[in-house]
Formats: sequence, structure tokens, C-alpha cells
Amino acid sequence: MNDDTALPAQPAEALALDSLIHERVRLGIVSALAGHESVRFVDLRDALGLTDGNLSAHARKLEDAGYVTCQKTFVGRTPRTEYALTELGRRELASYLGHLESIIRTARR
Amino acid sequence: MNDDTALPAQPAEALALDSLIHERVRLGIVSALAGHESVRFVDLRDALGLTDGNLSAHARKLEDAGYVTCQKTFVGRTPRTEYALTELGRRELASYLGHLESIIRTARR
Repeated sequence: MNDDTALPAQPAEALALDSLIHERVRLGIVSALAGHESVRFVDLRDALGLTDGNLSAHARKLEDAGYVTCQKTFVGRTPRTEYALTELGRRELASYLGHLESIIRTARR
Repeated sequence: MNDDTALPAQPAEALALDSLIHERVRLGIVSALAGHESVRFVDLRDALGLTDGNLSAHARKLEDAGYVTCQKTFVGRTPRTEYALTELGRRELASYLGHLESIIRTARR
């Protein structure tokens, strides 16, 4: 390096980010769920500007990892789908956010 | 939502993240370059734990976008490759980091 300072180890922290959460659509989903006990499918879809299929596909990956639960109920005759973060999902998100903050500090040195 | 609070617009901010920077390897590259005038190929490769091919391929995408420059010189008879962030790259990284911080705030509400 031409400024004679060693590269710290932190850049590699970017590569340690949980790729399941890091993907932009899924990051939108988990950060939206983080502030709520549960969020309806339609609210999440509209807040993120996604299609039904796109939200379903990404939410399914989060469900498969145990980060998110999907509950289907009926309100009268109307089916309602709600998503919620699991305890595991909250822990993994917290860890991910901690990594992000470390990366931000590195990048702003 | 069962907690009766509206979803704010911020979740969509995740989808507005610059995908060129957001990809984990490239995020590692630009955050490593951010603190230096320039960084040698070998130092960057080793700090990030990448193969030559992987670093080259991702750096090329950043070069193509004008975020990074690649300078090849000789030190004696030894070729040296160095990467540096451009002004555009620094601006886009700063904007990206601002978005990330906003997402972190949303997720921690």
C-alpha cells in the first residue's frame, strides 16, 4: 500500500455476513419484521413493493432456515397470512447488524 | 399487523441499496480501499482471503462501474497491481453506508 499502513483484518468481515439476511429483499423483510410481533403478507408486500411471488419465495428461504414463521388463519372467510421473526431470526439479525456496524466503522476509518 | 402499528416506508430502503457494493466480496473490497489511497492486489487478496480469480472478477465489475481504478506498474522487474477508489466510488460508498445506517435504525426500532 502506498500509504504504508497495514490492512486490518476487518475487511474480511464483509464475507462473514449471513448471506441469507444480506440479500436485499430478505434484508427488507427481516428489518420490517424486527419492529413488530407479526406482519401481514399484504402489508409486507406493499411496504417493500414486491410481487406476491417474490415475497413468497424469499420468505420461504427465511422459513426454511428457521428465521421466520408463517401463520395462515381465517378472519371470517378471508384467509390471512402473517409472518413473524423467530427467536433465532432475531438473534441472527442482531448478529448481522453488529457485523454491519463493524463494516461501516472500517469503511469510515 | 397484530400490534396495530403501521409499517413505515423504510423497509423498502433495503431494496434501494446499490447492488454493486452490497455483494459481500465487493463490499469487502470497497471497505478495505476506503481507508487507503491505494491497496496492492496481493494485500487485498490476502486480507479478504480470496483467490486471484475471485478478486479480479469482482474488482473488474467495480472498475466497469467507475468505482475503482486498477493501476499496473513495475517495481524493478516485478509487476505490481494496485486498486484505488475513485471519487465516484467514494461518493457511492458514502451513500451506501448512509442507507445501511438507516436500515439498522429501522431494524432496531
